[in-house]
Amino acid sequence: MSVCQPVSHQPTIRFDRLGPDVYGNAHPQALLQAIQEEGEALLDLANQHVISTLQYSPATLLQLFRLAAKYESNPNRYIRHNSPLRGKILINAFYEPSTRTRLSFDSAWHRLGGDTISITDRSTTGLAKGESLQDVAEMFNNYGDCVVLRDTNAEAIHAMTGSLHIPIINAGNGIDEHPTQAMADLYTIFKWRPQLVKAQVEPEQRIRIGVVGIPGRMRTVRSLLRILSKFPAAVKELVLFHEPGLDPSQDYWDPGQREELEKAGLRVSTCDDLPAAIPDLDVIYINAIAWVGDSYEVHGRSFQLTADLPYKSGAIVLHPLARGRELDTSLDRTDHNWYFSQARGAVFVRMALLTCMVERTAQVMDII
Amino acid sequence: MSVCQPVSHQPTIRFDRLGPDVYGNAHPQALLQAIQEEGEALLDLANQHVISTLQYSPATLLQLFRLAAKYESNPNRYIRHNSPLRGKILINAFYEPSTRTRLSFDSAWHRLGGDTISITDRSTTGLAKGESLQDVAEMFNNYGDCVVLRDTNAEAIHAMTGSLHIPIINAGNGIDEHPTQAMADLYTIFKWRPQLVKAQVEPEQRIRIGVVGIPGRMRTVRSLLRILSKFPAAVKELVLFHEPGLDPSQDYWDPGQREELEKAGLRVSTCDDLPAAIPDLDVIYINAIAWVGDSYEVHGRSFQLTADLPYKSGAIVLHPLARGRELDTSLDRTDHNWYFSQARGAVFVRMALLTCMVERTAQVMDII
Amino acid sequence: MSVCQPVSHQPTIRFDRLGPDVYGNAHPQALLQAIQEEGEALLDLANQHVISTLQYSPATLLQLFRLAAKYESNPNRYIRHNSPLRGKILINAFYEPSTRTRLSFDSAWHRLGGDTISITDRSTTGLAKGESLQDVAEMFNNYGDCVVLRDTNAEAIHAMTGSLHIPIINAGNGIDEHPTQAMADLYTIFKWRPQLVKAQVEPEQRIRIGVVGIPGRMRTVRSLLRILSKFPAAVKELVLFHEPGLDPSQDYWDPGQREELEKAGLRVSTCDDLPAAIPDLDVIYINAIAWVGDSYEVHGRSFQLTADLPYKSGAIVLHPLARGRELDTSLDRTDHNWYFSQARGAVFVRMALLTCMVERTAQVMDII
Repeated sequence: MSVCQPVSHQPTIRFDRLGPDVYGNAHPQALLQAIQEEGEALLDLANQHVISTLQYSPATLLQLFRLAAKYESNPNRYIRHNSPLRGKILINAFYEPSTRTRLSFDSAWHRLGGDTISITDRSTTGLAKGESLQDVAEMFNNYGDCVVLRDTNAEAIHAMTGSLHIPIINAGNGIDEHPTQAMADLYTIFKWRPQLVKAQVEPEQRIRIGVVGIPGRMRTVRSLLRILSKFPAAVKELVLFHEPGLDPSQDYWDPGQREELEKAGLRVSTCDDLPAAIPDLDVIYINAIAWVGDSYEVHGRSFQLTADLPYKSGAIVLHPLARGRELDTSLDRTDHNWYFSQARGAVFVRMALLTCMVERTAQVMDII
Repeated sequence: MSVCQPVSHQPTIRFDRLGPDVYGNAHPQALLQAIQEEGEALLDLANQHVISTLQYSPATLLQLFRLAAKYESNPNRYIRHNSPLRGKILINAFYEPSTRTRLSFDSAWHRLGGDTISITDRSTTGLAKGESLQDVAEMFNNYGDCVVLRDTNAEAIHAMTGSLHIPIINAGNGIDEHPTQAMADLYTIFKWRPQLVKAQVEPEQRIRIGVVGIPGRMRTVRSLLRILSKFPAAVKELVLFHEPGLDPSQDYWDPGQREELEKAGLRVSTCDDLPAAIPDLDVIYINAIAWVGDSYEVHGRSFQLTADLPYKSGAIVLHPLARGRELDTSLDRTDHNWYFSQARGAVFVRMALLTCMVERTAQVMDII
Repeated sequence: MSVCQPVSHQPTIRFDRLGPDVYGNAHPQALLQAIQEEGEALLDLANQHVISTLQYSPATLLQLFRLAAKYESNPNRYIRHNSPLRGKILINAFYEPSTRTRLSFDSAWHRLGGDTISITDRSTTGLAKGESLQDVAEMFNNYGDCVVLRDTNAEAIHAMTGSLHIPIINAGNGIDEHPTQAMADLYTIFKWRPQLVKAQVEPEQRIRIGVVGIPGRMRTVRSLLRILSKFPAAVKELVLFHEPGLDPSQDYWDPGQREELEKAGLRVSTCDDLPAAIPDLDVIYINAIAWVGDSYEVHGRSFQLTADLPYKSGAIVLHPLARGRELDTSLDRTDHNWYFSQARGAVFVRMALLTCMVERTAQVMDII
């Protein structure tokens, strides 16, 4: 028997060019309208590295999201007729291998007309032979206009910043942070509920966010919690879920991490019964992978989100992807699936951030 | 003794910028003139994945070759003064490693002004960690405008098409098909004898094609036979060669494969004596490699084409490359060498196909 | 205890966009003024492969450095408003892995508006499966406009040139040569002392150059010595340092290598006491790595340049990088550090060379 039956005798194998709405009912235009343009807040990004979500003021984040929504509302406008990053070079340095994040930055940069050069494998680099990160940074100064770094070692990015004269983005440093992921997460929440961007959110509009993950072990969770702490008025409650039997005072929070969130004005609780809590959650963020050095751990094996759980009407599910069994594919075809919108939005958020970092903001903004 | 004698004391080490004629006396202009422009046939390509050579009508193939010949006749015209793919991103996903095919698509896309992002190694991807192809397809939707996929598994491309909203090209799926290679093969034959494109080919102009390879094991051979079956009027006879002692009813054809060709109007025979048959063959296509999973098999070790065989005057030899001993380098300097022309033409055929797939045909055609 | 203390509560993590002067007090403008434009000397580069530093006349090298200095003096001028390599494709073929040199060529090509396609790993290529370099060269003819090759085998580049119809650059062939590195080395020396470019250099302006390395084992040293031999009037003495106890008549020079330099007019000596010689050296070039096949050797373990040695006032230190302990980081903040300037200049030298090789010189020169 052959494994290769004729694929098709049909003359055509068609696909549908669906609009962005299929990616989780995204509403970038509504978000665009909800945020008043104050482009000056973006100028600050031109002289900063992107290390931690802690760096950003709410005003800067909102203007960043506004620019991302502008790109997402009209994705072709800045591509063929205006190439704001033409002549600029991005150095994609992935010493910890990654496909999703690397290609996301590649795509964001190319969509704005720039060129990229890449390191995709640590083993063939000078680092593997003992070259210092400071010397690599000096090399990067000569080769490009912006660096994206992913490294298994949390300290790597700090070792480079002292020598760099071009901006660097932390695209995941060990178990520490992944700030552009958190920006994409919050951008998705604001697209879903644009009224949350207001300085004063009505009490009945505030949302309850459930996070399934280990805040002290997962860079995506750490960054998400920190960026949420910039918008306490939007959050009624932040519920951290842990497996039954786990003591959240042990190996769950980093020292001071929960206190940092509460000091910022967030109401934080922990819970070991996700199924029981689901009907009260507006947003459920789930992640199971924690990177540890060159390897990763899977946490929360008892958690799995499927389509048949009693979600609140209008509730959304987010996941940084790639997923494991914790996020069942039965959810894909439901209205709760905003994780594909989240992945899509990440490209536009990165486009907005990159534009500002290399001082090409004026080419895409009407007023700054 | 030193391995490093002075390379040269000559002030110059020159090379010749030879025209395309050195690559096998290519005649793209003659082909261009032989095919009447009917650009509408190309519009169909804009909403199709490229999975199998079975998808295409003769009319669509001829218009595709016409556009390829237009590009090859004037390779610089569309490069600096018109960049039809400017702002478009190709995702080159080579889960089965390849240099030749990957760089061919890279080159084709860049020559038209587009940007590419690449996966060149499965081991560092999410797939290696269990991510589904459906999720990879959702990622690709956000990152580019077209996907080129090579995978050792014949089913991989089908797993992705259900989730893709951008077109995908099958650049080799296991032992199944490699349709753009077959397009390049046929384009070469038509460049060599433009009169073969006519709906009615004079009996004395019809050609006898010899194929050395295993139709049921080699994707290049499978795709070639299928594309030839679209033009039965051009073919006097199709002779499949197998090693003496091999029973072609066993492990040679796929079930139904020979019948499919005969039903399409091709006269098909098998033969185990290549040297005796050579004087009667107009085209000899040879391949020895069959990919099986992550590895490959070499077939037909008894076959070797050398310069001193009694080829018919004007006969041409084709090979998908890379070659082994079955294609002796003594043939390179003979007029029978059209395999370099075939490799060259593959870039132009891919340029033509890509242009149509991402809806930029209007920018390179006078009439559609 | 957590490894992840909050990175910063500062609202900004700034970097300084310093001008090129921080990279070793580079003076490209002074060099630009010191060399009179005679662009015709560059036209010769359009039809040459770049195999060995022996190929170049002093006049051609000076005009090349002039164009490099023009680029470095005004790095933005040719990027956004003029893309001389637009529509051109560079094939970066690194069969011996490299980050620094590969990215340097990538960056140089992109800064001029061209696109690149890359091979970064021999193991996944046809070469690993037995494909010949001649066939790879035929493939490259179809895919690009220029090739950059690095290979552990000194003969590889010669195997390709016979089949290539596009120019190729030797970016390191085993222990033989690395000509563009030598061009960058000499460009740095001329930036530091533009008066050295004159046909007649005043005796008191001539410089004493110390080279720490093995001329017969290191491609960077071999190429540097050869390019220096084109400008004997600039050199008072060339001192080769070897470890005490090593006999320089054994395993140090290649047969005829020293005689070649002396015949060209250089005064050459050897020395085993670097510390004692330092006060008399104007330029100290140091390298410790010799590539041998897929591996490398470290030489000269007894040598280490630190900040506290008695350098001559104004003396500069050069190193091809990446460095080991032979070049102490204490030197980085001293005025003797011109190795970062050297790395920076390498990009501009390559930009100049590439422009000429693919016949786009007229687009960046006022007169040719």
